[in-house]
Amino acid sequence: MKTIVVCSGGLDSVSLAHMVAAQGGLTRLISFDYGQRHRKELDYAALAARRLGVPHHVIDMRGVGAVLTGSALTGGAEVPDGHYAEETMRITVVPNRNAIMLTVAFGMAAAMGDQAVATAVHGGDHFIYPDCRPAFTQAFQQMQDAALDGYAQARLLTPFVHRTKADIVTEGARHDTPFAETWSCYKGGALHCGRCGTCVERREAFHLAGIPDPTAYEDADFWRQAIAERERA
Amino acid sequence: MKTIVVCSGGLDSVSLAHMVAAQGGLTRLISFDYGQRHRKELDYAALAARRLGVPHHVIDMRGVGAVLTGSALTGGAEVPDGHYAEETMRITVVPNRNAIMLTVAFGMAAAMGDQAVATAVHGGDHFIYPDCRPAFTQAFQQMQDAALDGYAQARLLTPFVHRTKADIVTEGARHDTPFAETWSCYKGGALHCGRCGTCVERREAFHLAGIPDPTAYEDADFWRQAIAERERA
Repeated sequence: MKTIVVCSGGLDSVSLAHMVAAQGGLTRLISFDYGQRHRKELDYAALAARRLGVPHHVIDMRGVGAVLTGSALTGGAEVPDGHYAEETMRITVVPNRNAIMLTVAFGMAAAMGDQAVATAVHGGDHFIYPDCRPAFTQAFQQMQDAALDGYAQARLLTPFVHRTKADIVTEGARHDTPFAETWSCYKGGALHCGRCGTCVERREAFHLAGIPDPTAYEDADFWRQAIAERERA
Repeated sequence: MKTIVVCSGGLDSVSLAHMVAAQGGLTRLISFDYGQRHRKELDYAALAARRLGVPHHVIDMRGVGAVLTGSALTGGAEVPDGHYAEETMRITVVPNRNAIMLTVAFGMAAAMGDQAVATAVHGGDHFIYPDCRPAFTQAFQQMQDAALDGYAQARLLTPFVHRTKADIVTEGARHDTPFAETWSCYKGGALHCGRCGTCVERREAFHLAGIPDPTAYEDADFWRQAIAERERA
């Protein structure tokens, strides 16, 4: 099945791209630039596309990010402190982000004659985010079936939706994903910081999967303390 | 109900904006710039917002338009000649356009605390376009309910979906819509051309509604011939 992979350059979506490529259906990677994301992440998506020999389409959504940012901020939304500060901020910046990205990806599928759009939403996300849950992905498929009726057909693929991040590490390793060429850290420094929410989650996923983590962290040991604290809480 | 109106600056959506304003719920107008549309149309949307005393948000989607355009053209899609050439081209340019615009509008509703998004899709459209039909709008609502579950709630309003363009002229007149300050023509000249598909449809709608058409056309009489030809066909 000719498949577009929505690829941020993170561990999950780069692993997904390698999995789809191994199955023989990868046609292209699509990434979204809302203006606020680290360039670094997009560079890793570009690297994955080159490695897998497919085109990489970076959709410039800075105009959308800019307008919805202003709105959220003037609307008085609060950006909390703490590990997930940047993650929370990204949601604030572009409300409805997953639905927006996926409708653009389906537009590209319709334009290019691709049969599927794959996204790496996974079990670790969907307790927090409504647009990572199966109820959303099913409703999204029905909406697209109606929107493109008679013009095109494309499936939304979410192979990780019931899996954990550790499962994704296992799947990525099976398809020789070069994990060191993926980026998770929200801080966008020279190395992964090892301390933000997403670095802790990444480090823990490798541990749970029993697979060596090739990532260079500024603070490679903080994750144990963070997890111990979470378990005490 | 606090309502965002998706407004292109055309007769339908400017009439809708006046109707929603008369009902007392209009919070803002949102327009989309895909790069290929006549600036003129957006100027008329801006004028409507000023007249109605609400903010006008122009979402810069030129990055999306550019990428999906290239895709459609390199994909070999044909752009037929004839009256509807420009209309057909717009669809080719941004496949899935309605779904993309509405997900962005719902993002804005979530950011601003608005309760509804209104769009002027109408009966004259939905035989041709799947994403103007009730099956689409219903599926879209379910998708957004799932996507924003627990964060926000917004209704998709399509008051014209079972109405004709003549009905819209009647409704617009009831709410004192200044029709001369709306733009339909795909050619974007100094005056409406009177000959393209959308000019013919506009001129006919005023005729059917029995309401004087204040629009200045280059060729004010061509519509009778075009309609006679359609009826013979």
